[in-house]
Amino acid sequence: MSGVPPDSTPVPANASTAEHPAPPHKASTSSHPPASDPDPTLTSNHHASQRGQPATGAAAAAELSSLTLRLKSSLRQFPDFPSPGILFEDIMPLFADPQLHEDLIRALVLHVSQNYEKPDVVVGLDARGFLFGPSLALRLGAGFAPVRKQGKLPGPCETASYDKEYGSDFFQMQADAIKPGRKVLVVDDIIATGGSAAAAGSLVKKLGGTLLGYVFILELDFLKGRDKLDAPVYTLLHGQE
Amino acid sequence: MSGVPPDSTPVPANASTAEHPAPPHKASTSSHPPASDPDPTLTSNHHASQRGQPATGAAAAAELSSLTLRLKSSLRQFPDFPSPGILFEDIMPLFADPQLHEDLIRALVLHVSQNYEKPDVVVGLDARGFLFGPSLALRLGAGFAPVRKQGKLPGPCETASYDKEYGSDFFQMQADAIKPGRKVLVVDDIIATGGSAAAAGSLVKKLGGTLLGYVFILELDFLKGRDKLDAPVYTLLHGQE
Repeated sequence: MSGVPPDSTPVPANASTAEHPAPPHKASTSSHPPASDPDPTLTSNHHASQRGQPATGAAAAAELSSLTLRLKSSLRQFPDFPSPGILFEDIMPLFADPQLHEDLIRALVLHVSQNYEKPDVVVGLDARGFLFGPSLALRLGAGFAPVRKQGKLPGPCETASYDKEYGSDFFQMQADAIKPGRKVLVVDDIIATGGSAAAAGSLVKKLGGTLLGYVFILELDFLKGRDKLDAPVYTLLHGQE
Repeated sequence: MSGVPPDSTPVPANASTAEHPAPPHKASTSSHPPASDPDPTLTSNHHASQRGQPATGAAAAAELSSLTLRLKSSLRQFPDFPSPGILFEDIMPLFADPQLHEDLIRALVLHVSQNYEKPDVVVGLDARGFLFGPSLALRLGAGFAPVRKQGKLPGPCETASYDKEYGSDFFQMQADAIKPGRKVLVVDDIIATGGSAAAAGSLVKKLGGTLLGYVFILELDFLKGRDKLDAPVYTLLHGQE
């Protein structure tokens, strides 16, 4: 159940590496609303979220659907990494291309704006949760606070353990990272077994935060990690069903 | 010389923890240009860099100066962390407050737009370079690629070693992360001895990239880390001179 380090994306290799067509940026751009307003992919939601004006439900759902298709086709799979039998999902292509990167943040903002109260703090897990948690926080006008392995953060810290393949490991947050009653969203790149996300959520609660929910880029559904989490879970993409 | 792990910020403790006044957000906002254009802190440079129109030199210098004052006063110092005799510089307050976070990214964009050719790729070091490298890349319209410890990245990788207190450690980049001839900026939170940044720069060159330079949030000047780097170095803030 917990035989999976949180910083890898391990899965029994049940498929050979699929071919992924190049993401159809040019073509897909035409599915965006016409440019009578500033390009919404770049700016409109940024402005909207600053003003507390999320996009309307139907338009947002259509845009989110188009964005997720494009993002999903850009993930890469590497069999037998980091060890034999594991099919590793590589999210780095989403950051390598500025348009995909913009699409990723836009999709996450769309979802959060539609489905959660505005968070006060976005909490991201070391290290890949750092890749988009701060960008998402900026767009939402929220603070960002890190969860790190024990011994990395200075000053008074709260600690929580999580299970690893052999024994446990410890996560920490700075004790003043979340003021009591603040609304918090926990984000990470991938939910596998859910152990590290559960530990992060427990830290948020220990600090007195109100846990709005969890947001992940990718879920490995068959590992049922969300069963470990006691707040709403949203994942943008689903892998290896 | 190399007695310093790259993921901490170690310094002989030569000062007790200074008191830091609360950042003067409200007052400093008045130093921004008048609001005939959209708030430049939020959007104008984003648009400008998209259009290749950086702010004019004098206005940018004045704004950058105001931003750095505010950012510097928000750092926190923790003596004897992670070990006795080390004064740790904590950059997390810059991410905890959405306005400071915005100021940070704005300051970095201003500097890069004024002083470098537009980069094709921003390369960030694991893990604290992930906190702002992707946001900076988004604003610059550049891709983002990570440097990670050996064994974390899937697929063909290039490897470089760097010295640690006892022995060496290894950094990797994915072999296709930088196309030959692409212009690259390497970013990390703090430059201490410079060993890890030098290793990242060497990886960029091994992959055929053109290294425009290095950008750090904070420099510990007396450690002379920049002497190890053979491309232009910019640091937003200076600590413990």
